[in-house]
Amino acid sequence: MTNSFLDLKLSKSNKCFGGLQNVYTHFSSVTNCEMTFSVFFPENYEDKDVSVLFFLSGLTCTHENFMTKAGSQNYANEFNMVVVASDTSPRGVKVDGDDDSWDFGTGAGFYLDATNPPFDKNYNMYSYIVEELYQAVFHNFSLDGAKVGVSGHSMGGHGAITIALKNPDLFQSISAFSPILRPSNYPWGIKAFSNYLGDDKGLWEDYDSSKLIQRSSDPKPILIDQGLADEFLDSELGTDEFEQIATQLEYPLIMRRQEGYDHSYFFIASFLRDHFEWHKNQLK
Amino acid sequence: MTNSFLDLKLSKSNKCFGGLQNVYTHFSSVTNCEMTFSVFFPENYEDKDVSVLFFLSGLTCTHENFMTKAGSQNYANEFNMVVVASDTSPRGVKVDGDDDSWDFGTGAGFYLDATNPPFDKNYNMYSYIVEELYQAVFHNFSLDGAKVGVSGHSMGGHGAITIALKNPDLFQSISAFSPILRPSNYPWGIKAFSNYLGDDKGLWEDYDSSKLIQRSSDPKPILIDQGLADEFLDSELGTDEFEQIATQLEYPLIMRRQEGYDHSYFFIASFLRDHFEWHKNQLK
Repeated sequence: MTNSFLDLKLSKSNKCFGGLQNVYTHFSSVTNCEMTFSVFFPENYEDKDVSVLFFLSGLTCTHENFMTKAGSQNYANEFNMVVVASDTSPRGVKVDGDDDSWDFGTGAGFYLDATNPPFDKNYNMYSYIVEELYQAVFHNFSLDGAKVGVSGHSMGGHGAITIALKNPDLFQSISAFSPILRPSNYPWGIKAFSNYLGDDKGLWEDYDSSKLIQRSSDPKPILIDQGLADEFLDSELGTDEFEQIATQLEYPLIMRRQEGYDHSYFFIASFLRDHFEWHKNQLK
Repeated sequence: MTNSFLDLKLSKSNKCFGGLQNVYTHFSSVTNCEMTFSVFFPENYEDKDVSVLFFLSGLTCTHENFMTKAGSQNYANEFNMVVVASDTSPRGVKVDGDDDSWDFGTGAGFYLDATNPPFDKNYNMYSYIVEELYQAVFHNFSLDGAKVGVSGHSMGGHGAITIALKNPDLFQSISAFSPILRPSNYPWGIKAFSNYLGDDKGLWEDYDSSKLIQRSSDPKPILIDQGLADEFLDSELGTDEFEQIATQLEYPLIMRRQEGYDHSYFFIASFLRDHFEWHKNQLK
């Protein structure tokens, strides 16, 4: 079969902290376009106990933001974790309305499978991550599928938690930075869900961490770091609501509120080592 | 006096690793435009032995690249160093020819004072760094002018070494990543020098590390990291020539050649901690 999503093309490779920061492209059959993602391989990672961390980025980001701005390679090397960073939406496809605003469409796939035309042909980032990207990584590289964590930032924190809650066998550890935790009730999420999924709010619940956590049969601990100077804390994230639900459920949630930190990569970089350590320990 | 280069406007501030990553603007009277630079202040830096590191970036960069892509704040905090990162040229001024190519003009000031019109009105990055930026930093913040290092990357490595060799009282420690060490003999440097300085090669020597090192009366040790997979190593940098001259002079040069590393920020990030440690030790 030609052009399978399993066929990767290496488009860039930079040595970093003794390892390799690579960028790959492949053709996705669920987003119907070429997708780009990055993988960092620590030096001699195969010789030691290795685990894998998927990182999902936030609104407007590509595969590149996390690999250039977070300082991840240093910690990936320290904890011997292979790091996979995805793009946040299909790219270069012409879909009516997907380039009209910064918080919807291109760069804003919301890690769901769209059901509404015209978005349903391409905006299927949920299946892309869970099926194609996941399989492409484990098909092409010699890694242990029993030691896989997922993390993300903002929209990507939403992606990490929703995907992990729905796929406890694929992802065994979970963390997030500044995640969108109640998208059904806040502007970014409402805009995305109503356009991608339509008005049936039953469908929305399938991509809302505050709902999914109530259905979890396998409650894996979640580490969240949230800046208290985050400009979107009150208007978009739903942090308190999610925490209240988790508390009621006695769900194992570690919610760390960090004084003075905002929504930026400066915040992610500051606490990223803790997240690598968290995943490494959870995956032991 | 209004609009003095000493008057800083804080345009951005992000908490990072417990400290503050700030961005300032001020009006420069030597580049005749508003200039932007960043300063990172480690947490409680005033309570401990603090030193200052100026970082000069390479071609196409702004004040932003080093502060977002190098992972510097982590190490700045560890070694309690305030880090100042400059822009690489005047911005937003209309000078004939300064936007025609990526390696000349905007983003390519080469840390010199232009003598050739029309560039001589604005392209005076040497005086900007040594006089205005330096004074603005020490005027506005409580820092020790006896503990100041300078480093840089590529064109900024050239800037760091030339500026330090000419101003041993201002900068007491020196390092560079992938520096341009013999600009008079290689395309980037020849293009810049002939346009900014004209054909008098006597003037060029004043901005060529391979010449300036021969005149140094105060030979401070220089640490250089150079990637061996650097795509510009043979065509632009003059690394071997500089090292041969230093060896003949018995100049204290530590030239580290790093197997497999290229010219990118992935390389800088990989060895940046060593440079912070180097400066901290030199400034003791």
